[in-house]
Amino acid sequence: MTDRIARLQEAMRAAGLDALAIACGANMFYLTGLDFHTKLRLTLALIPASGQPALVLPQMEAGRATELARAPLRLYPWGDAEGPGEALRQAAADLGLAGRRVGVEHTVMRVFELRALEAAAPGVAVEDATPLLAGLRMAKDAEELAAMRQAVRVIEEALRAALQQAAPGMTERELADLWERGIRAAGCLPSFETTVAAGPNGANPHHSSGDRRLQPGDLVVLDGGAVYNGYASDITRTVAVGQISDEDRRI
Amino acid sequence: MTDRIARLQEAMRAAGLDALAIACGANMFYLTGLDFHTKLRLTLALIPASGQPALVLPQMEAGRATELARAPLRLYPWGDAEGPGEALRQAAADLGLAGRRVGVEHTVMRVFELRALEAAAPGVAVEDATPLLAGLRMAKDAEELAAMRQAVRVIEEALRAALQQAAPGMTERELADLWERGIRAAGCLPSFETTVAAGPNGANPHHSSGDRRLQPGDLVVLDGGAVYNGYASDITRTVAVGQISDEDRRI
Repeated sequence: MTDRIARLQEAMRAAGLDALAIACGANMFYLTGLDFHTKLRLTLALIPASGQPALVLPQMEAGRATELARAPLRLYPWGDAEGPGEALRQAAADLGLAGRRVGVEHTVMRVFELRALEAAAPGVAVEDATPLLAGLRMAKDAEELAAMRQAVRVIEEALRAALQQAAPGMTERELADLWERGIRAAGCLPSFETTVAAGPNGANPHHSSGDRRLQPGDLVVLDGGAVYNGYASDITRTVAVGQISDEDRRI
Repeated sequence: MTDRIARLQEAMRAAGLDALAIACGANMFYLTGLDFHTKLRLTLALIPASGQPALVLPQMEAGRATELARAPLRLYPWGDAEGPGEALRQAAADLGLAGRRVGVEHTVMRVFELRALEAAAPGVAVEDATPLLAGLRMAKDAEELAAMRQAVRVIEEALRAALQQAAPGMTERELADLWERGIRAAGCLPSFETTVAAGPNGANPHHSSGDRRLQPGDLVVLDGGAVYNGYASDITRTVAVGQISDEDRRI
């Protein structure tokens, strides 16, 4: 991940950005290896255009961050009693962010994180860094490609196993459960609601798997995905139950 | 929900707020009955201190909004070709938001929604309305209480059914799957990762259910929840497998 941060810092310097402030989400994971989901407790990675990044985080997550971080981060933990203000102010001061151009992800960062950043770094100019990060991530590195391939392998193998056990009379939900159990047995989670839509339900792109039983002649639409190490697969397959009409075969 | 909006508008007038801008989330659902999760497409409910609320939303969601909305909303749909700017500008103009005090949820609204609001209503003063909304929601109405009770009933009954089928030799994950199937069969989704932690794993508050088999003498910590109509339950129970020691019994 040190490579990723080095490439990011190069892109920041080319764009004239002095730092990035990254809230919890996919890019926090991409850049630091940390997959936190702190809904209400401020957690921000501050990445300067040169030098070591900082991570402001709840005290209770500091142990896990030290254990799991895959990039050299200086930690600024804060406790519930004092709140995040002083830790963030210290990190912003150490990185000299006051009055500088700091990029954030407009579709990820929330207003409370923005306001905290503005208070900690007076005069900061906050800009949208989504295009810069998207550009960086267009080219997947070997580790990402391996994770994406594994996510696809898991969802396909779980589907194959589920279909081997499927039979007419089984409900949509039972088949979806079977599929999901295969996803979980491979150490993954579903990337979204696993959907099995039989017969007429197949026409609804966001059908919720229900009590309809699979019948001979049904076309069954299967939509599912698995998340492996932060990378999600998403496949849609249509299978037939027993003999189907020529028209269905053309579909 | 008209009642809820009337109570909210009364609280807004008392607080001197001219309007609220509510992004997708729990309070959008509470106030309008709409449970959208538009990650990147701008969706904002604008609720003036008096008069009819507006909903700016992607064109593709307009049909569903008309069908599902449980409050009288004037819709301002926008298409992907033109983007949300003009629809939001029109809604903000119709409600006269320029230069006014508008409350938002600091921990829910993202920067792209804030910036869109600031651009659509020049001179708007954006304030944190989290305390105002939290105050409104302290007292649950009959519909909310019924949903909360149902979420508790579902998780408890699913656990009872799963434990009836549980036996020594079953893995943690198998028991968790059994429990989750009961949640789904009741038409709910788990409110978080369903956890079964047997023996020493029970000491870890956020254990992921794994391949450990339940053994006679184990204490098993079960942590799960169900979401019914937007309301989540969360129960933790400890059960014993077979005979246990006196010390474990005291725990």
